[in-house]
Amino acid sequence: MSYLDEIKAATLLLDSAICKRNIKRMKQKADYHGLKLTPHLKTAQSRIIGKWVKDAGIDEITVSSLSMANYLKSLDWKIIHVAFPFNIRELDFLKKLASDFSISVQIVNEITATHLADTIERDLGFFIEIDAGYGRAGVNASDTDRIEAILRICAKNKSMRFRGFYIHPGHSYYLNVRQVYDETISAMAFLKLKYRPFYPECVIRCGDTPGASMMDDFGCIDELSPGNFMFYDLMQVEIGSCVREDIAIALAAPVVDIDKAKSTILVHGGGVHLSKESLRSNGRVHFGEAVVLHENGWQIPKQKISWVSKISQEHGTIQADDELLESVEVGSLLGVLPVHSCLTGDCMRGYLTLDGDWIDHAEGAQN
Amino acid sequence: MSYLDEIKAATLLLDSAICKRNIKRMKQKADYHGLKLTPHLKTAQSRIIGKWVKDAGIDEITVSSLSMANYLKSLDWKIIHVAFPFNIRELDFLKKLASDFSISVQIVNEITATHLADTIERDLGFFIEIDAGYGRAGVNASDTDRIEAILRICAKNKSMRFRGFYIHPGHSYYLNVRQVYDETISAMAFLKLKYRPFYPECVIRCGDTPGASMMDDFGCIDELSPGNFMFYDLMQVEIGSCVREDIAIALAAPVVDIDKAKSTILVHGGGVHLSKESLRSNGRVHFGEAVVLHENGWQIPKQKISWVSKISQEHGTIQADDELLESVEVGSLLGVLPVHSCLTGDCMRGYLTLDGDWIDHAEGAQN
Repeated sequence: MSYLDEIKAATLLLDSAICKRNIKRMKQKADYHGLKLTPHLKTAQSRIIGKWVKDAGIDEITVSSLSMANYLKSLDWKIIHVAFPFNIRELDFLKKLASDFSISVQIVNEITATHLADTIERDLGFFIEIDAGYGRAGVNASDTDRIEAILRICAKNKSMRFRGFYIHPGHSYYLNVRQVYDETISAMAFLKLKYRPFYPECVIRCGDTPGASMMDDFGCIDELSPGNFMFYDLMQVEIGSCVREDIAIALAAPVVDIDKAKSTILVHGGGVHLSKESLRSNGRVHFGEAVVLHENGWQIPKQKISWVSKISQEHGTIQADDELLESVEVGSLLGVLPVHSCLTGDCMRGYLTLDGDWIDHAEGAQN
Repeated sequence: MSYLDEIKAATLLLDSAICKRNIKRMKQKADYHGLKLTPHLKTAQSRIIGKWVKDAGIDEITVSSLSMANYLKSLDWKIIHVAFPFNIRELDFLKKLASDFSISVQIVNEITATHLADTIERDLGFFIEIDAGYGRAGVNASDTDRIEAILRICAKNKSMRFRGFYIHPGHSYYLNVRQVYDETISAMAFLKLKYRPFYPECVIRCGDTPGASMMDDFGCIDELSPGNFMFYDLMQVEIGSCVREDIAIALAAPVVDIDKAKSTILVHGGGVHLSKESLRSNGRVHFGEAVVLHENGWQIPKQKISWVSKISQEHGTIQADDELLESVEVGSLLGVLPVHSCLTGDCMRGYLTLDGDWIDHAEGAQN
């Protein structure tokens, strides 16, 4: 009997071999370029997968909240970096965590720097986040007044240690990755040149999957902290970061109805399973691609692609090609490769490996 | 000290007075029209809120999965209806639940009907789901061959009891609600007229919030099972189902940075908190609207609206009007009214009332 027979309701499958291969490849690439890899666990959010990261020879991870750091602390990392502009409402929580394990935070303004400098009593690393054009978060790369103000404030507290500049060139998701990286590298090279004389330990850390996957020249960058690459997804395929065969997760969704006249398959797999993230590819907007599941995982279609054309809270409608339509029946399980694996993982909060083992996921933002 | 001081990280607030008022109003409206209200708990997914539903004099609820029925069973309902095309992989789970409490399911094809009729040993109600033009799920309203085939198959098992026709006119979310309802009512009236002589107990049940909120003439419809109305959201405001003052939930998101030059506020509140559901209103696409939080809840802006203009996994960027921009600082909490409360609730999995009480939410699809 296959592990598939055990699946009764929508379940997020994890091909652990693909995931481990993705981790290993990224570590090898980082090693080859002399870069430190401090992967982001925001996508996997899992202690077991954290263990695989550790087994690959990685001793520092990145997370996006203190609660995620707290969830993953038991793996005994050298340090955990929280790569989100620090939320001063969590100062007490930070102090509690910092007394337990080594942690660093991210600063984008003087107010936050002041609160930290006034409060912190134990060693605390910090990065200054730089916005090199994405416009989401961070100090503008040319705003050296603000950078220096933050450094001055933090220098008053001897427990605070400047680790360097962090940048997430998220516009590499939308624009030409190489062009974005060239601009990012040049902005960061300026900062490195300017501040290294005063902070010889400071590094440039860069946090996106497309760049880490696709670039061959990292210039002044010292450290990489991509997260999505552990699973990848269709958005990354579209960008060119990976191929479909690198995607490590697929939603197993039960088929509840088939309409041969319309060539559609209705599955129990909707926005609460896949998320509502959509992708425009080949002129159509969709929410995932169907794959046929088998005992050893899933089969990427060689030619025709069937996609999730409509989605609501619980329903997914797959616009199916003839071959797929003939191969499934009511009660079958169909796989769906996600558009955005970070959100699908967060929706499902747990994974089933192809060996039938359950893999943990943090409980989510509010727990 | 206000309950707000206790909030450190992104938290989903629930104004229980608004929620209870929404439930009471809908019950009064159903009573006035002589309709049975069997509300859908897919939005709230909560035992405590289920208790409020029960306190309003409601004895039957609707859910979208067996696991949700299982989660809510302890409230001792007369019956729980699972309003999703039945997934035959869960036959054993259904049998287990049916031995525990009264449950009914939804059927859309002969294969599912056959599996149920061959297996069920205890009393099981069923609805046939009808598609009256939405195209998501259900038997086409004019396909009486299929309807009769399903009825014939189920009639072979004396434990199976036909409850009626269920319809979710979800296209009322996109089109003119009254026009959609007129078409729905006319399609259902035909079915009622045709099958009532053989099934005198059978009813027409209709399951959307816009129709239940906005219609004054329900024609042949006997029962209403909206779900979103307990919380409402900005999508429902846009449709015309409610006003902003009827929205019962808001995400409390910590402000981590402010850019006065760009008039933007960066909050820790992204796709894992609000979901990625977007709304086009007044010519712009957004992911929620900002509200100012105070001790007794939140203040709906009288004039200028500030909206969540960008969202990523954890980040939300609010394009703020001048008044809002002046009123917040780094470390403040800002409220966000959600575009789609069903998905925001499912992302956050728990609510904090304005009295500081925690309200439960089911653990989600995979748990």
